[in-house]
Order: sequence, then C-alpha cells, then structure tokens
Amino acid sequence: MIRKIQHIGIAVNNLRDAVPFFRDVLGLEHVSTEEVAEQKIRAAVFRVGESRIEVIESTAPDGPVGKFLQRNGEGIHHICFQVDDAAEALSRAREKGVRLIDEAPRTGIHGMRIGFLHPKSTFGVLTEFAQEGDGER
Amino acid sequence: MIRKIQHIGIAVNNLRDAVPFFRDVLGLEHVSTEEVAEQKIRAAVFRVGESRIEVIESTAPDGPVGKFLQRNGEGIHHICFQVDDAAEALSRAREKGVRLIDEAPRTGIHGMRIGFLHPKSTFGVLTEFAQEGDGER
Repeated sequence: MIRKIQHIGIAVNNLRDAVPFFRDVLGLEHVSTEEVAEQKIRAAVFRVGESRIEVIESTAPDGPVGKFLQRNGEGIHHICFQVDDAAEALSRAREKGVRLIDEAPRTGIHGMRIGFLHPKSTFGVLTEFAQEGDGER
Repeated sequence: MIRKIQHIGIAVNNLRDAVPFFRDVLGLEHVSTEEVAEQKIRAAVFRVGESRIEVIESTAPDGPVGKFLQRNGEGIHHICFQVDDAAEALSRAREKGVRLIDEAPRTGIHGMRIGFLHPKSTFGVLTEFAQEGDGER
C-alpha cells in the first residue's frame, strides 16, 4: 500500500553548486546531507510538505548515479513511494509482471528498507519503494 | 513559499498502456483524465498522499511532451510545487537569476495558475509552480 511520495531523487554533477538553488531559490528546508557508500552517492535531503527532495551527487563514475549523469546529464533520477512493507510491495509488483532491480529490500538512507523496480517495466520511471524504519518519521 | 509537491508529471507514449500500471500495479487512486488543448496533452491524474501523479500523453508531435518523448522516451517529465502565489514565486525566482519559461502565470489543469522555470537554470529539472484555484483542494 503506497502512502505518499517519500522523495524525489535528483541527480546533479555536484552538491556544492546545486544546494544553493534548492535552499535559497526554492527556499526548501535542508534536513541533512548523507553519504551512502554502497550506492556511491552523497545526498542533500530537503523537506517539502510530507515529502523530501534528495539532491544526489555521485562519488564514483561507475556508480548508478555516475552512469546516469554520463548518459542523461543532470535531472530527475527517480521517484520513491513510501509503503508499509517494502518486501510485500516488491513481491506484489513481481507477481503483476514488473521486473525488479532489487528482489528483496536493502538498507538505504536514514535506515529505510528500500527496493527499486526496473524502469523498463515502469514506463521509464525509476521507481523505489521505501519502508520507513522505527526511528524515521 | 513552497507548500508541497503538487504533482509529478510523467510522459508516456499512450495512456491506454500506462494507466493500468499506475492504477492496478501501484494501486493509486485515479482521480480524473483531462485534456489540455493548449499544451497538446491528455493527462490521467492519480492521488498519492497530499500529491498527485500526472501521467501525460501527447496529442500532437509538435507539443512540448511530444518533443520530450522523441528526445528522451518515456519517463519523469517535470515536478510541480504548490505555492501560495504563482506570480510572486516566478518573480522571486527571476530576481535570483533563474531563467523562466513563463514570465507570468497561465491557466493549467484543474484551473490552477501555473508557470514553468527553465531546466537550464534548475539542474535539468523542469520545475513548475502551481497556485491552486478556489475550487481545487
């Protein structure tokens, strides 16, 4: 069951140039900046209503966001929906014929349980499900 | 002042193929389908939390979404933030050096007052501001 847009991920060449736009021009509240070594990214997280904007730079050219930037340049990278149970949401999508990137949830930013659907099955939209951990509200 | 993500716009080749994914696989509530002749689009609107997903097909190859699809294929097209005053939000962005697509608000879906920022100024993210009309909640 999808509850809300948890976040929108935006790929940028570097956070130093991009953060002032989201913070000072759009006026969004900058919540935190975090590195996810496993994903080879660093993300500045902004709050907007019940959702977040994650502005993401790549920390290695062979990471998923590094490859995206080389192929597409800067722009919206993915959409993440908050679900009650990430494992169940992934299974349900698979049963309905959706190709998965993650067959089972793994740990993402803020300790969330996350998993991605493949954009070939989702009309080009890289789609993430995230189940918030007990510490995340 | 940005209040929330009003919607995410997703460009697809045709609504007939795409709507079942958003409605039956993701399980989102289908609110309405509307044609915006001026933009040469037809959009299926889904509710997700306080936000919407607008799944958009082009009704003419020379429209903005038709051109996007030819260049990029299907995928996330834009993000729209709800603001209190679209005219003021556009002016404020221009004062901060952002290039605008719309110098003044125009009327969009559901009678909203809308205006777009140019993605060259916004890290590749086509960004819309929308001010909800009196009839829209």
